[in-house]
Amino acid sequence: MKATLMYGAHDVRVETVPDARLIEPTDALVRVTRACICGSDLWPYNSMPASPTGNRMGHEFVGIVEDVGAHVRTVKRGDLVVAPFLWSDGTCEFCREGLHTSCLHGGRWGGTELDGGQGEAVRVPQADGTLVVLPVAPDNALMPSLLTLSDVMGTGHHAARVAKAGRGKVVAVVGDGAVGLCGVIASRRLGAERIIMLGRHPDRVALARSFGATDVVGERGEAAISRVRDLTGGLGAHSVLECVGHGEALRTAVGIARAGGAVARIGVPQETTIPDAQASFFANITIAGGPAPVRAYMHELMPDILEGRIEPGRVFDLVTNIDGVPDGYRAMNDRRAIKVMVRF
Amino acid sequence: MKATLMYGAHDVRVETVPDARLIEPTDALVRVTRACICGSDLWPYNSMPASPTGNRMGHEFVGIVEDVGAHVRTVKRGDLVVAPFLWSDGTCEFCREGLHTSCLHGGRWGGTELDGGQGEAVRVPQADGTLVVLPVAPDNALMPSLLTLSDVMGTGHHAARVAKAGRGKVVAVVGDGAVGLCGVIASRRLGAERIIMLGRHPDRVALARSFGATDVVGERGEAAISRVRDLTGGLGAHSVLECVGHGEALRTAVGIARAGGAVARIGVPQETTIPDAQASFFANITIAGGPAPVRAYMHELMPDILEGRIEPGRVFDLVTNIDGVPDGYRAMNDRRAIKVMVRF
Repeated sequence: MKATLMYGAHDVRVETVPDARLIEPTDALVRVTRACICGSDLWPYNSMPASPTGNRMGHEFVGIVEDVGAHVRTVKRGDLVVAPFLWSDGTCEFCREGLHTSCLHGGRWGGTELDGGQGEAVRVPQADGTLVVLPVAPDNALMPSLLTLSDVMGTGHHAARVAKAGRGKVVAVVGDGAVGLCGVIASRRLGAERIIMLGRHPDRVALARSFGATDVVGERGEAAISRVRDLTGGLGAHSVLECVGHGEALRTAVGIARAGGAVARIGVPQETTIPDAQASFFANITIAGGPAPVRAYMHELMPDILEGRIEPGRVFDLVTNIDGVPDGYRAMNDRRAIKVMVRF
Repeated sequence: MKATLMYGAHDVRVETVPDARLIEPTDALVRVTRACICGSDLWPYNSMPASPTGNRMGHEFVGIVEDVGAHVRTVKRGDLVVAPFLWSDGTCEFCREGLHTSCLHGGRWGGTELDGGQGEAVRVPQADGTLVVLPVAPDNALMPSLLTLSDVMGTGHHAARVAKAGRGKVVAVVGDGAVGLCGVIASRRLGAERIIMLGRHPDRVALARSFGATDVVGERGEAAISRVRDLTGGLGAHSVLECVGHGEALRTAVGIARAGGAVARIGVPQETTIPDAQASFFANITIAGGPAPVRAYMHELMPDILEGRIEPGRVFDLVTNIDGVPDGYRAMNDRRAIKVMVRF
C-alpha cells in the first residue's frame, strides 16, 4: 500500500510499504478515505534531523473498517469511522475522566512502529477506545467537517473550554491557522460575546469573521497587545486561545489576557519555559491547555456538524490525493493553504 | 507614633513617624491591635537595595477604627476590623468579580506613601471596600486565627481553590511556611481525600499533620517527585499548592502534578519564567494562582474560625511587640519562627 514518510526536514515521500494488517485482538484495520496534513506536522517538516528509516506520517483520518480483531465490540466491518489524533484504550483512569491524551495504554500514530493516517490503510490499536462511528456515507457532503473531529475542531473546542470561553466573555484568538479558526467556531458555539482574532492573512481573517470573529487585529507583538487593550477598555480578554506555540505568541497571549482570565496553550510549545511568569502571577492569569482529548469531544461536537450548526470543514482550502501529499506539505508550510485534505 | 521601616536588606528599624490621619473622605483611621510579619516580607529583607528614606512595612493587621471620613458607610468608630493585604474600593469591575487584588483603584500598604500594618496606626484608603468588621472583642481568644484572614488563611484558601482541591482529590503542598500550612487547612476544609505535605522541619510537619496532612515527604527536587509519584500509584497529585515561589519549588510542583491536574502558584515568583513548559503542556496541567483576593474570602472563612472548625492562628509561634519587630524578622528569616504576631 502507499503511505507518507518523512525522512527529514522538507523531505516528505510517498512510498510503497507493507500492507497494514491486524496484529492484536483489540485492533481494527481501517481503509482510509480522507486524511489531513496538520499544522503540527510542520514542526518536524522544518526541523527533523535526517533519518535513514523515515517516520510514517499522519494522525487525522476517516475510513472504512475492513476487519476487526476478536475482542473489538464497538465497530464492525463496513463502518465509517473517525480516529482521534492519538489512540487510547477508553477504559483507563484518564480515559474515564475524559483525558484520552494521557491514556495509560495509548499512543501516537505513525513513527517507525505504527501506520500513519497519511496512507491507504491503518492498523488501529485499541479500536474500541479509539474509533467513533460516523452515521453517514463516506461521500457525504459533511465529510470535511466530520474529518475535523479528528483534530482541529476538537482542539479549538479544547482551547475555548480550558480558556473558559462562554456567555458574556471576551475571547481573543492568537493564530489564524486551522486550530485558531476552529477556536473561533468553538468560542462562538460556547456563547462568547466578542471574539477578537489576531491574524493578518486576508483569506484567514475573512474565514474567521464568517465563523464569528467580531474584531480583527493585524498587529503583532507589543502593538497587538496595545490594540487588544484598546478594544477592551484597557482590561484585556477573559479568554485567550494561543494556537501557535511560539514563545512570542505566548507572550502576546499573556499580554492581552485580562486579570483573572485564562490563556489556553494549544499550539505545541517550541520553548521549554513559559514567559512573563510574574505578570501572569500578579494578574491571577491561569495558563492551561495541552493536547486536546478530542476523542472525549467527538460525541458532543458531532451533532452540531450533522445538523449544520458549525462548518469547521471550511478550513480545508486545498484537496489532494496521496501522491500530492508532499506538495500539500509545501503549500501549508508556505502558508498558501490553511489546511490540506487528502482524498483516497 | 511608632512604625516599622525597612532601609535595605537585613535593615529593619522601628522609628517614630508622623501620626496617621485621615486625608480622603473615603479613609478610615485604624489603631492597630495586632499585626504580622509575612513570609513575603522576607524577599525584600534579603534583597532590598539600600534606601535613604526606607519603606514602611506590614500588610496584615487588625485594629480599632478611631475615625472615619465623611463618605465611609460600612465601618464606624469603635469597630474592630481586619484589613486584607491590599486595599481595594470594593466597587470596580474586578472587585465585583471577587478579584480585589486587581482593583482598579486599590493598592499596596506601606512603601513611601502609605502607612504599613507594622505600626501603631494606619490610614486606610477606600475603607468601605477594604475593611471587614470582626464581631468579637479585641482580646478574644480567636484573635490569632481572625488575624490570618488578612493574608495567610485566605491565601491558602486561594491556593486550594485555584488548584481545584476538593472531594476525592489528592492534594500536594510544596512549602511548609504559614501559607503552606493554611493550604493544608483549606484543602481539608474543601474535602480533599489525601493531603501530602512536602516539608522537613519537624515542628511544621507536626502542625501540618494536625491540620490534616495525611502524608509527609521530606525529600527535595527529583527525590521528592519520585516519592510523591510512588505515593500516588505513579500518577501524581490532582492539586498542587506551590507556596514558596522559587523556581525549584515550581519545578517540583509541576513534576508531582497529575495529568489533567492543576498547580496553584501562590508563593511570589522570584523568576521571570515558568519552567518545564512542555511537560506541563503534554500532561494538560493547569498553572494558576497569584495574589489571593483575601477580601473576597473573609466572609466565607470567618464563620469557620468563629465556630472553631479551623484554627489557622496556630501558625503563629512567636509573639512580640512593636519594638521586637526587627528580631521577629530575624527569627522568621532564620526559620526559627513560622510566623510572627505583633501585639500592640
